[in-house]
Amino acid sequence: MSAEEAAAQQQQQQVGGDPAPAPESQQLQQQQDPPTYRCLVLTGHGGYDKVKLQVKKGLPALAKGDVLVRVKACGLNFADLMARQGLYDRLPPPPVTPGMECSGVLEALGEGVQERRVGDKVLVLHRCGLWQELVAVPANHTFLMPEGMSFEEAAAIPVNYISAYMMLFDFGNLRPHQSVLVHMAAGGVGIAAAQLCKTVEDVTVFGTASASKHEVISQGGVTHAIDYRSRDYVEEVRKLSPKGVDIVLDPLGGSDTQKAFNLLKPMGRVITYGAANLLTGPKKNLLAMAKMWYNQFSISALSLMQSTKGVCGFHLGYLDVESELVSSAMSKLLELYGQGKIEPRVDSTYHFEQVGDAMRRMQERRNIGKVILLPEPKKEEEHVSNSHLHIPRTST
Amino acid sequence: MSAEEAAAQQQQQQVGGDPAPAPESQQLQQQQDPPTYRCLVLTGHGGYDKVKLQVKKGLPALAKGDVLVRVKACGLNFADLMARQGLYDRLPPPPVTPGMECSGVLEALGEGVQERRVGDKVLVLHRCGLWQELVAVPANHTFLMPEGMSFEEAAAIPVNYISAYMMLFDFGNLRPHQSVLVHMAAGGVGIAAAQLCKTVEDVTVFGTASASKHEVISQGGVTHAIDYRSRDYVEEVRKLSPKGVDIVLDPLGGSDTQKAFNLLKPMGRVITYGAANLLTGPKKNLLAMAKMWYNQFSISALSLMQSTKGVCGFHLGYLDVESELVSSAMSKLLELYGQGKIEPRVDSTYHFEQVGDAMRRMQERRNIGKVILLPEPKKEEEHVSNSHLHIPRTST
Repeated sequence: MSAEEAAAQQQQQQVGGDPAPAPESQQLQQQQDPPTYRCLVLTGHGGYDKVKLQVKKGLPALAKGDVLVRVKACGLNFADLMARQGLYDRLPPPPVTPGMECSGVLEALGEGVQERRVGDKVLVLHRCGLWQELVAVPANHTFLMPEGMSFEEAAAIPVNYISAYMMLFDFGNLRPHQSVLVHMAAGGVGIAAAQLCKTVEDVTVFGTASASKHEVISQGGVTHAIDYRSRDYVEEVRKLSPKGVDIVLDPLGGSDTQKAFNLLKPMGRVITYGAANLLTGPKKNLLAMAKMWYNQFSISALSLMQSTKGVCGFHLGYLDVESELVSSAMSKLLELYGQGKIEPRVDSTYHFEQVGDAMRRMQERRNIGKVILLPEPKKEEEHVSNSHLHIPRTST
Repeated sequence: MSAEEAAAQQQQQQVGGDPAPAPESQQLQQQQDPPTYRCLVLTGHGGYDKVKLQVKKGLPALAKGDVLVRVKACGLNFADLMARQGLYDRLPPPPVTPGMECSGVLEALGEGVQERRVGDKVLVLHRCGLWQELVAVPANHTFLMPEGMSFEEAAAIPVNYISAYMMLFDFGNLRPHQSVLVHMAAGGVGIAAAQLCKTVEDVTVFGTASASKHEVISQGGVTHAIDYRSRDYVEEVRKLSPKGVDIVLDPLGGSDTQKAFNLLKPMGRVITYGAANLLTGPKKNLLAMAKMWYNQFSISALSLMQSTKGVCGFHLGYLDVESELVSSAMSKLLELYGQGKIEPRVDSTYHFEQVGDAMRRMQERRNIGKVILLPEPKKEEEHVSNSHLHIPRTST
């Protein structure tokens, strides 16, 4: 993807973080000029201003097996925040378009694509480059959206739900009557994990989140909400479950991974999938990195045996999207969606030109559920009234 | 158990490794004197001669909830070899009776035991102390033997099959079309693991064993037998499965755990459950220990995440026998036995007075399947002709 990106860069017309042109002038431009499409580009590592809205000319090139997707909504992930700070090694170096998930409508099919039709609504999971109005991706990185699913919901599914699913049911092997500790339970993966835990009989979910989010996460499947800001979550879990828990989903890293390991029952396992403790502010924090490194969890085979526990690392970015594991997880998830058993929770939507605000919301942990980016330009009246800046569905 | 042991020790009458008295004189003794029972005692750490046959007077004390078992057959495990050398921390210090599994018949019930009857045939799993003619154990450490199961088969089940079951299906979460590398595939756990893999559709089993054992393990469920003595098993696995395997069962430890980890596919996991590499001969080998320590596998949370793999440690000795996980594994196993899907393979049987020979057989990796110890005295004619020293069912 980075070679294509580089080629496309040469045609780019940068518009910075400014609001897009008014709809009238844009329509006029589309009729007269070669096609263009809006995209977000990470121009260097640093703060929120490093992600810029740009307009590319032409169309993304369709390789054999690719489909062209008109993107309607994109997901924002913690990995994108890490990538902006230069802390995520799965994104090619800047300038590069981030974005691992989106939803949209197929506009064209590359050679050899049999199982898709123009007009199909799809969810897309791809290593990067999806924060664009138009993207070319391999057809087998797309999944058909079920009836009744909105584009915003669709963009909220791939990364969070596949991660939660694979961690809980593949590595975790979650079974009836077990217990799970979910950190950042109001985040995208956290919300997904609690919903998925509810699909298994009598699973107890401990969820950490700030107190203002407890009502929402409790409705979403968390059995015991713990305010990690005012309480020691380890003590709280031990009070309710002296023997510990069967599974910990650990997006924090550092010393919290050790705490997670200690909280496990025999045969329990911690699944570590992030380093959110690194993200203390908008820019790379060297002290946090040093602390993280110093507290990095490491374990020997002997200690694992003597405790009869497991430690797994999960990172969707290191898995092939076309692998059977990923596609089978996605099929199961779409089935669960059809049965009403999972329901993506969209926290808020931001237009591309507001990406900095979107990132700030997630960075400051103000979201409950998924933060969505919309490629379509913000309308003039919205720009004035700010009415299109979605307010979370429930008050925080 | 160690307090009871200590009390019993005071009554002991040591007979060393000598053959038991002839049956006639023994019967006479039983009619006239208070009851006695034979047991094996680890008298200190070291070579084969450290396990001695002794005779205790009286009967084991029955606590509330205990049952008295007349033991018919006991299992020998790698952990027992380690314990003799002082390398297993789950056995109390010598003098102590080893033995984690046996089968037998109930002779008496302690207060409050409801779910057992005198005469019941049972399998027993207990932390230690089972290498005795008579043992008192909690009733919930016993499991009813199904119809048609011999005492030797029953003594071959608890440790090996529960370990293999929990490693493959709990930590491993083995599913159809996956692949498993089983080291020491002709050992007790190895034989059990291959049989259990066959209960799942289309699972490929790579099994390491010396060439003379290949025919037997191939019949037992191993898809690709690898002679680790003449080949590099990593290369052999890669030749057949370039992407690696989903699960490695690792009883070796040291540098082999790292090799196992490297052989895993993404989402794969190694389950390490032993340190057989430590056992280079009958006595503790300081050089092997140093090498093991030096090559000890250790991994950080970050490396796990970047490879999207898992590492689990398993040790049945650290699990409560009454835990739901263990008892549910045992129920499943007895069900599979009833369906003819698992069949314990008894390699050989040795009387208590031959325990050194039994240990040597296992130490020298000459067994295919389980080595069994029998509490009943070797008969005089056997002692002369050696006819009761079981020859493995198939030639090696």
